[in-house]
Amino acid sequence: MTDISSPASAPAAFGGATHLECTRCGTRYESETLQRLSPCCEKPLYPRYDLAAIGARLRREDLAGRSADLWRYAELLPVRNPAHAVRLGEGWTPMIETPRLATRLGIGRCWVKDEGQNPTASFKARGLCMAISRAAELGIREVAIPSAGNAGSATAAYAAAAGMAAHVVVPRDTPHPIIQEMLALGADVELFDGLITDCAARVGEGVREHGWFDLSTLKEPYRVEGKKTMGYEVAEQLGWTLPDVIIYPTGGGTGLVGMWKAFDEMEAMGWIGSARPRMISVQAAGCAPIVRAFEEGTEYAEPWRDAHTYASGLRVPRAVGDFLILDAVRRSGGSALAVSDEEMREWTPIVGRDTGIFCAPEGAATAVAAARLRESGAIGPDDSVVLFNTGSGLKYVI
Amino acid sequence: MTDISSPASAPAAFGGATHLECTRCGTRYESETLQRLSPCCEKPLYPRYDLAAIGARLRREDLAGRSADLWRYAELLPVRNPAHAVRLGEGWTPMIETPRLATRLGIGRCWVKDEGQNPTASFKARGLCMAISRAAELGIREVAIPSAGNAGSATAAYAAAAGMAAHVVVPRDTPHPIIQEMLALGADVELFDGLITDCAARVGEGVREHGWFDLSTLKEPYRVEGKKTMGYEVAEQLGWTLPDVIIYPTGGGTGLVGMWKAFDEMEAMGWIGSARPRMISVQAAGCAPIVRAFEEGTEYAEPWRDAHTYASGLRVPRAVGDFLILDAVRRSGGSALAVSDEEMREWTPIVGRDTGIFCAPEGAATAVAAARLRESGAIGPDDSVVLFNTGSGLKYVI
Repeated sequence: MTDISSPASAPAAFGGATHLECTRCGTRYESETLQRLSPCCEKPLYPRYDLAAIGARLRREDLAGRSADLWRYAELLPVRNPAHAVRLGEGWTPMIETPRLATRLGIGRCWVKDEGQNPTASFKARGLCMAISRAAELGIREVAIPSAGNAGSATAAYAAAAGMAAHVVVPRDTPHPIIQEMLALGADVELFDGLITDCAARVGEGVREHGWFDLSTLKEPYRVEGKKTMGYEVAEQLGWTLPDVIIYPTGGGTGLVGMWKAFDEMEAMGWIGSARPRMISVQAAGCAPIVRAFEEGTEYAEPWRDAHTYASGLRVPRAVGDFLILDAVRRSGGSALAVSDEEMREWTPIVGRDTGIFCAPEGAATAVAAARLRESGAIGPDDSVVLFNTGSGLKYVI
Repeated sequence: MTDISSPASAPAAFGGATHLECTRCGTRYESETLQRLSPCCEKPLYPRYDLAAIGARLRREDLAGRSADLWRYAELLPVRNPAHAVRLGEGWTPMIETPRLATRLGIGRCWVKDEGQNPTASFKARGLCMAISRAAELGIREVAIPSAGNAGSATAAYAAAAGMAAHVVVPRDTPHPIIQEMLALGADVELFDGLITDCAARVGEGVREHGWFDLSTLKEPYRVEGKKTMGYEVAEQLGWTLPDVIIYPTGGGTGLVGMWKAFDEMEAMGWIGSARPRMISVQAAGCAPIVRAFEEGTEYAEPWRDAHTYASGLRVPRAVGDFLILDAVRRSGGSALAVSDEEMREWTPIVGRDTGIFCAPEGAATAVAAARLRESGAIGPDDSVVLFNTGSGLKYVI
């Protein structure tokens, strides 16, 4: 791979985690063998780093001129050997200021972080890039994933780039462009009658029968490390400040908890202060387990029954990281709210005309949420707001 | 718009052209009023810059740390005022080394320049970004374009971002995802029975009747300036060297002639030497006017009759810049060849599995061409080759 970092600045130093830590009880595990959920609590494991040492030798200004992808943060990522980094141009997506949309919403400043410009046209590239790079580093040659769609595309792409076999199980009614993309990328694709949770059970069978490595989100420790780079990028692209509000469409929620982790890491290195954006979790009215748990004040979210929404990325009835999402939303002073499919359909061309971005329904959902929170006063007229468009609208064309 | 350039390096200084020049006879025109084809020869006009002055104050190393889009080359672009730059993240696309594809092709090194990661998922973003920014700077509020598809999407996006009205005329059988995208971006879309050349006539009527500004490629002087940045990026991303061979899918051919112009500009500034890649123009067997002209040794290309190919970007029976394409191909020691739709269909999943890139048929065509030229000996086993994937395969899903 050609290093497209600038010769004028120091290249990123690949590091790796010091250990893994149970997100529930804090028990430590070593990071150099394959891990899934924590053996202690059956909860997600987070990689941890020697942030004091990294912060002492790496200033945030040193990042200038590094490669225009998420590997600019290599010291804070789990891959140890650059040769194992599978690179297709993931991350460092544009932060697009959208003044006409801000005026429509009645807010001070508004940006769309356009994740549709990732490889495979969605934010899923970040997590799967990291999980597959790290799996390759630990000797894995065959991976499997249940997906609502976009994660399957990203898995197919990074597995192909790494020369691995990929098995993807998706609901039968996954958007057609996504299925075509996975097939063109050489994945073994199984269409399954059911939701992503049913597909996960099917992957479980393959894991037991064939020894596939399961890339389900937060069931292995590295997808979140790819996703957290969205948090680093928000800060760096806004000149090492954070917005007042971040609105994030939440299926599995790894992006939201990943950004929350990134903020803590940056503070530990002295790159930002202790202020945090209000984190807003948006779900579909037809599948809103996090919203319900937020409103009911519970620590965990009950699985949602009869989940339905055309925003396939939001059709996730149960999130393994539910307690992490709810914790970040609550501690940030944020909230969780659901929007209807009709509202997403209505707002897709509104966002398009105001910004020039053909967003995914999940992206449109964040604009709907912004409008509603502005109306309720939860977002004020002077607030700065970052909306996450998690993918290109092209992936949802029927 | 937030400036995502690094605070550590000097920001790009917006400059603008000194004048426009007829590509046929060299007659000069001033650049600050709207121009279309040259009044002298009815041929494309090229913006020219004071390259001696720019080269004296701007070293290629100064680009390190600038924004990760085509505006890093702002001194070499026609927009004068940064406030007129309409930015959606265009350019600085990844240059992805593809070792397994190189092995399959039997060549030394191979990269895919993945233009599918642009806004609206194709290379057309570059040209339309520049044309619309410059049109905005010159006071235009309403634009029109005939398109084979992708240029229409890009026009819709940049016009929306600039707050302009956009009229797009495309063949009725333009791929469905592209039409959906244009509509979501608020364009006035007209489906027309015929090819892009027939659509151009329809746009001509709108120009006469309603005063629309016509963005047809090379009929205004600025799309080529956006496209030329592909040439700057190839050089910068390969450490200020150029590959032995560049293979480029050619419809209107603006990208190929733009890169050729960029190489000359870089040489004039002392950024590269006089060596040039062999420029290979690839067309579809069902629409190959440049290939025919190359083989027959003519200076211009006769329009192709009954053009047909599913690679909609190659369905361009007549290119205004035909003589510029043929001149660059010949002077570079390159060639022009046609590949069949069947070969593009066959190679799309081959490229997918080897690289992790879901390419457009036009991108697959470049791999077909590489295989054929390797077989004929026109590409040697030690050659370095850059293939241009001009768009995402998602735009062609049926």
